[in-house]
Parts: sequence; C-alpha cells; structure tokens
Amino acid sequence: MKPSTAPSISYSITIRLEVPSGGSAVSDLTTTVEQAGGLVTALDVAASGADALRIDLTCAASDTDHAAVIVEALKAVGDVAVLKVSDRTFLMHLGGVIETATKHPLRNRDDLSMIYTPGVARICQAIVADKEDARRLTVKRNSVAVVSDGSAVLGLGNIGPHAALPVMEGKAALFKSFADIDAWPIVLDTQDVDQIVETVAAISPGFAGINLEDISAPRCFEVEARLRERLDIPVFHDDQHGTAVVVLAALRNALRVVGKDLPAARIVLVGAGAAGTAVLKVLLHAGAVDVTVCDVQGVVHAGREGLDPSLVWTAENTNPAGHTGTLRDALPGADVFIGVSAPNLITAEDVEKMAPGSIVFALANPDPEIEPAIARQHAAVVATGRSDYPNQINNVLAFPGIFRGLLDAQSHGIGMEVLLAAADAVASSVSPDELNANYIIPSVFHHDVHQKVAAAVRDAAQRADKGSQHPDEADRGRHE
Amino acid sequence: MKPSTAPSISYSITIRLEVPSGGSAVSDLTTTVEQAGGLVTALDVAASGADALRIDLTCAASDTDHAAVIVEALKAVGDVAVLKVSDRTFLMHLGGVIETATKHPLRNRDDLSMIYTPGVARICQAIVADKEDARRLTVKRNSVAVVSDGSAVLGLGNIGPHAALPVMEGKAALFKSFADIDAWPIVLDTQDVDQIVETVAAISPGFAGINLEDISAPRCFEVEARLRERLDIPVFHDDQHGTAVVVLAALRNALRVVGKDLPAARIVLVGAGAAGTAVLKVLLHAGAVDVTVCDVQGVVHAGREGLDPSLVWTAENTNPAGHTGTLRDALPGADVFIGVSAPNLITAEDVEKMAPGSIVFALANPDPEIEPAIARQHAAVVATGRSDYPNQINNVLAFPGIFRGLLDAQSHGIGMEVLLAAADAVASSVSPDELNANYIIPSVFHHDVHQKVAAAVRDAAQRADKGSQHPDEADRGRHE
Repeated sequence: MKPSTAPSISYSITIRLEVPSGGSAVSDLTTTVEQAGGLVTALDVAASGADALRIDLTCAASDTDHAAVIVEALKAVGDVAVLKVSDRTFLMHLGGVIETATKHPLRNRDDLSMIYTPGVARICQAIVADKEDARRLTVKRNSVAVVSDGSAVLGLGNIGPHAALPVMEGKAALFKSFADIDAWPIVLDTQDVDQIVETVAAISPGFAGINLEDISAPRCFEVEARLRERLDIPVFHDDQHGTAVVVLAALRNALRVVGKDLPAARIVLVGAGAAGTAVLKVLLHAGAVDVTVCDVQGVVHAGREGLDPSLVWTAENTNPAGHTGTLRDALPGADVFIGVSAPNLITAEDVEKMAPGSIVFALANPDPEIEPAIARQHAAVVATGRSDYPNQINNVLAFPGIFRGLLDAQSHGIGMEVLLAAADAVASSVSPDELNANYIIPSVFHHDVHQKVAAAVRDAAQRADKGSQHPDEADRGRHE
Repeated sequence: MKPSTAPSISYSITIRLEVPSGGSAVSDLTTTVEQAGGLVTALDVAASGADALRIDLTCAASDTDHAAVIVEALKAVGDVAVLKVSDRTFLMHLGGVIETATKHPLRNRDDLSMIYTPGVARICQAIVADKEDARRLTVKRNSVAVVSDGSAVLGLGNIGPHAALPVMEGKAALFKSFADIDAWPIVLDTQDVDQIVETVAAISPGFAGINLEDISAPRCFEVEARLRERLDIPVFHDDQHGTAVVVLAALRNALRVVGKDLPAARIVLVGAGAAGTAVLKVLLHAGAVDVTVCDVQGVVHAGREGLDPSLVWTAENTNPAGHTGTLRDALPGADVFIGVSAPNLITAEDVEKMAPGSIVFALANPDPEIEPAIARQHAAVVATGRSDYPNQINNVLAFPGIFRGLLDAQSHGIGMEVLLAAADAVASSVSPDELNANYIIPSVFHHDVHQKVAAAVRDAAQRADKGSQHPDEADRGRHE
C-alpha cells in the first residue's frame, strides 16, 4: 500500500471522524494511517461525549490518490465513522490567500474627510505639482504588479489566466511575508505580445515595479525588452532573472567549496529557454569565460544550422573550445554542469567523466536532470530545485529582496549590476564557517537573507541610477 | 483675520512648539489659534523639562493659506518656538492608505508548500477543470478593480493617472472599511476609449467586479457599455450609477415627507453629463413620468437643434408638457428640482415659484446650484452633496453595499433592478419615526445601511441572474 514518494504537507488532509469513547479506537486510527503510508501530524478531539468522540485527524499523504487510500483504510476500521474530509491546501486557498488592509481606521467623518474627499484633493494637487510625489504619497511607493498571461505556469504549461491566479496570489503573499511589499496579482486575458505590452504599460502608473511571471519563451524576452524600454519603473522576469541570481549565488559558493575560480571553470549549461538564457548572461557578466550551451539539438556552435537570433548570439559568445555534437561530447572534463532543461538527461557515468571536484546543478522541476543521490556519487557538490534534498536553488531567495531594494532606491529600472549584487548577497548569507558541500545556499527562511539582498540591491541601484534622489531625502522636506 | 469658510479637519495641521515650562504660554497658544480663526482639536505635551515643554498642537484650518496664517500667529507669540508643522492629511497619505495582507502566516516550509509550490499546483488544476472555481479558490471572489484614467477627478478635472491615484486608493480603503471588499486601484496611462476598454478587459480575469471612476463624459458611457457587453463580471461607473442610486433613495424619502408620489411629481433635472443621464434613467425606471431635463443650452426638447444621440433619446423620453426655453421657464410649478450641474444656477425667487411642498436637491460640488439656507426659505426639503448641511447625498452610501451584494451573488453583470433595490435599501434605512425634512438620507456611518444595501442587491442580482449558483451552495461540495 505504501506509495513510492514520501508523504508531503502540501498533500495534507484533515479527516473528521466519530469513534466510541471507550476502547482502543483512537490509537487504532494512527496505526491505520501509518500502515496506509500516511504521516499523522495532528489529532484533535473536537467534541467529547459519554458515548462518542469527534476527532479531527490531520495527516500528510503523497498525492491525491494516496489521500483517498488513507480515507478508505479509516472507513474500514470497525466502529469508526468518517464524517468529512478536508484538504488543507484547498482550505488555505478558499477565498484567496491575500487581501487588502487599510492603514488607518475609518471611524468617523473626520477620518473620511482626510482619507477621501475633500482632503484627498490636496494630495492630488501635490502630485499634479510633482508627479514623483506619487511615490511618496500613494501605495505606488511600495507596490508591485505580479503579471502573468498563464502561458507557462509551474510545470503545468499553458493553463490560462484564471488557473494562473493562485500562483500569482501566492507570490504576492511571499512578497508581503518576506519583504513587506504590497504586490497585487494581474492575470491577463491575452497571450499576444503587443497586447501584453500595451496592457502592462497602461496600468503601470499605479505600481513602482513589474514582476513578470510564467510567460512562455520566446515571447517573454520581447515582452520584457519592450516594457523595459518603455516604462520608468523596474521590469523583472522572475523565471529568467530570479533563477539566474540564485544559480550564480550557489555557483559562487560551490566553487569556494571545491577551491576553483569562476573565470577558470569549464561550465556546461543545458537549456536555452527563458531561464537558461538568463543564467548564461549573468554568468558571463560575473566573469565566466568557458561556457558551453546545449539545447535539445545538442551543443550550440556557430557551425550549427538553423540557429535563431538568440542562439546566434549564444554561439558567438560561448564555446571557446569549439565543441560540437551532443551534451555527452561536451561534458567530459567540465567543472560545472548546470541543467535548466528536462528530467533524466545525464547518468552517473557522465558525471564520472567530469573534472575532479565537479559541481552538478540539476534544476529541472519537479524531476531533475539526474537523481541527486546518483550525481553525488561522483560530484563534489550537487544542487537541485527540490526541497527534499540539500542545496535547493529557489527563486524565493531572490525576488523579495531584489524588489525591496529597488523600491527603497525608488529605482527607474533594473540593470545587470543589480542582479550581480543580489547574487553576491545571497552567497554571502552563508558564512565561511557554515559553507560546505551540503550547504552552499541559505534557506528561504534564513534570518536575514532577504534584508541582505535588499540592502545590496538598493546600493547597487542607487549607484547605477545616480540621477535619482535618495529616498530618505525625499521623505524629508514638506513636513519640516 | 477670520476666513470666510469654517475650519475643517481635512485641513488639519499639527504644530510642534517649544514653550517655557512656567507662566501662561500654553494657554496663550490656544487663544492665539482661536483668534486666528483656527480650531484647536488636540494639545499634547510631547516632552516636559524643568525649563521648557515640547507641545504638539493640532488644529483645524479653513485651507492652506489659513494654516500658514495660524503658524505665523504662533511664531509671533513671545517665548514660543515653532519647531515643525505637519499636515495631518499628508501624514495620513504618506506611503499610501492601503496595503496588502496575507491571510495565513508564512512561517516555515510547510506553509510555503501549501501557499506556493508545490501545493498551489493542485489549486491551479482545480481551476483548469472548472474556471468558475477561481471565484472560490482565489482573491478574485472578493476583489474589485477601481479603474480611472484621471480625466475627471473630483472637482480637479483632467489631472492624469498619477494624481488620480490617491482618490482610487482612498476608494479602495472605503471598500474595505464599509464592505470588507479587496479593491485595488488601477490608474491608466491612456485616455483613449479603445485602449481603456482593451486594458480593462485584459486585466479582468483576476477581478469579480470593475468600478469605473472619474472618467469624463461622454467617453465614460462608451467605455462602460463596451465593457458590460464584453465582460462576465459587473461593470459599475460610480459617478453615474452610485449618484443615481443615492438621489433616488433621497427622493423617495423626500416625497414621503411632503406626501407626494413619484409618478405624479413634476421633476426638473439640470445637468446632462454622466451623473445627470444616469439619474434620469434610474428615475424613469423607478416610475417617474414627468421629468424635464435642462443643460447649459436650456430645456432639452425635440425641436432643439444640434442634439447629440444621448440628448435625442432624452428628448424622446422626457418633457411630456413640451417645455422649451430656459431652466427658468420650466421650473415654475415643479415639485422637484435636481441639480447635478454648476454653482449658483437658481435663486430664492425660482424656488418660490415651484409648487407648494417643493424639494430641492442642489448637488453641484463643492458649490451647489443654490445655497441650501436660501433654498430652505421656500422649499420643504433641501439636500446637497456637502457634509456641512443636513441631507448629504453621498455615493459612499451606495457603492460599498452594491459591490458586496454583487460579489456575494457571484453576479456576472449588473442591471437596473440592482440599482433600484439598492436605492430602496438606502431609503428604508431611515425608519418612519426618524424621517423628517432634515433627515431623508442616513449617514455613511449609519450602523447597517451598507449591510442592508448588500442584502437587497444580492437578492435582486440572484433573481436576475437565475443561471448562477447560490454562493452558499458553491461553498459546499468539494470538502464534504
């Protein structure tokens, strides 16, 4: 009866049962769940009577089918009645995971006359006099739009705007929890590049930043480039730049563990989509010299036929050794493998042929390019995108702090210097004492990683954006 | 030194002063402010020492210039040092008046795995299976976009999106405070009708309602009509429909006070813009028969040259007595005057010539068509849009409850029956015992007016939208 993968809290159910007050029924429940492969995380007596107990039993299952198996096992126990089964994740999302809040109570006419008419008219007039005051006197200052067309959501693909909404909303919750940013989900009823650009540009005055999310390649490149050109606020595509920042951070620390330098490292990068292209550009800016890129057709090189403009650029700026052929031809002797591609692409033998002290980042989700336990037989450092192995490469380490820093700097854009500063801040959150092959990257719950990223980004953005006023100075003035 | 209009909390300042500890300096402060025409609302000792007191004095002024006069008067008092002057309304709007909040704490990996990946993927899949589940499992259920292009903001005119943002944000705060609705301000960097329609349609999947706001006529009619045609969620233009609902509510009660009936009443309506047109349509649907409309060119009648399509419709559906000429020609003998137009249009003599027991709604803001005290010399009931006279006609009475009811009904649109139901609910919040010439409409802080409006709208919307599922039924199901 035991499922192949371990029970997870993300598939957690709460079952309301009625059992006789006397006897061993309660302890039978736990045994039954465990024998069915579930993990009991809570058992509460919701009501107790002379004859019967009402019990809320919460347990983790592996997936939906496994949850049904557990419920059936409980129903088969004598004297036990299953009253109701609730799915904890669904309960948490009922009615959404974010809401708005007012910063001031609205108790009487005086409050109303300041928050709304007639007092608000003076706030409007101040912004008429100086448009930049919108960043001081409105929610714009702290607000980010989380924008998606629902075309490439998680591993689910093109599921459209309505089904993408829970992800964008979850992301808004993360923005608030990790960086006190007021983000609102905007899901688009169009997948046309022109319409996406026009829509985001039209709604941009109310926001101080745009986080593009789960927009499929290659459209995402054009959407981002055109919006960056057009808007006076930062535009960030998390699937590209968030991933690139965390990969660079992890790579810097992995190289420290094995005592190698980035400029000298031979890197093989598999995947030329949104994430792969962004990782490549960040690595090159960070000082990497010897990078070879592979896609589904093998090594990208100038002699390959049918390269699109993006791959032509890649061919011109990578592969100094002139590799041709497949990934298997390029990998032997490499110091670093970075996969942002597809499951089960490489084998233990491939890793064995890499240079001594090799580093393997197998980031395909949910199934990596190679099982991490297998990679670890030969590689010195292994990282994945999964939370059930050491060294999880997780974008959540990057985007909250990056936007916090950009908002604090009242930045009008975002450049490579910001991404490099963010990567260094993530990397330096792991102290030299802590650094080892199983801890190259901090947890997203690390006590100050988000603040560190924010401070580094703010400084980098202010250096880059010298024309802008320091926000602390902008805050003074009118009321003194 | 006294200004012509009374001090208002919406022009309230807090002045930090230092005065000697001994002597009469503190009481001199209050006297000084009052002699300068200000109203002291608070006096706090922020710090007390042997020699000096630091005092925060808060007072209401009439306007910005008057506030400066008060500060100068305080500076002229011997031994008093003015350290800092803060504007309470600006302080309240610093950084905005709304924010986002997470409904669940994000404390550890388990929380993260349910709110975000991997658990959120199952929520997405549920919505892929049934798009309507987005109204159950996301913030869409309770979310309204407050949309403006900044073209007709309050009495300020075409001030653009950035300067309009504080109003939309204030409105979002009212939505939350009065009806627990999660509204987000969307200000548009375009005033083109096609682009407004395309933008709002594109962002609509994440919202359960659209509140259009402060969009100038006649563009607002086309924007609203096209969006209503296109979207499967209610689209409401508050300047039109909110005003119309509250006017009808007040008129029903005013007619009760004077013992007249709506179908028999002779009504003169001045103003054919967004609000005037909406008021007219609601009045006709509510049973009014004898309405004469005037605009800046006088009475609207079929024989007048140069009528635009909207005025042609008006001419065909109003003015059964065949009035021509000016407002002054139409007003004698009328039972009701409703102005949504411009300041100081009519005189005491005009009101005197109306029918006995006349009703005057002078709603131009901030200066009404006639001073209410003057109108009251001859009219039985007078109402304005101002908060410093009895009977304030305030949209805030309508829009929170209307949207609450529409969201609770999971309504796909909004029809006339909803507006009439909302007006009746507002009117019936004034009990027969309470009703009199100075109390025809409740305060926006009335203890249950918003709930009453919500319940009436929900019922009306459900009757109209029979295809939709009852929300309580939609909530059951999956988890039982």
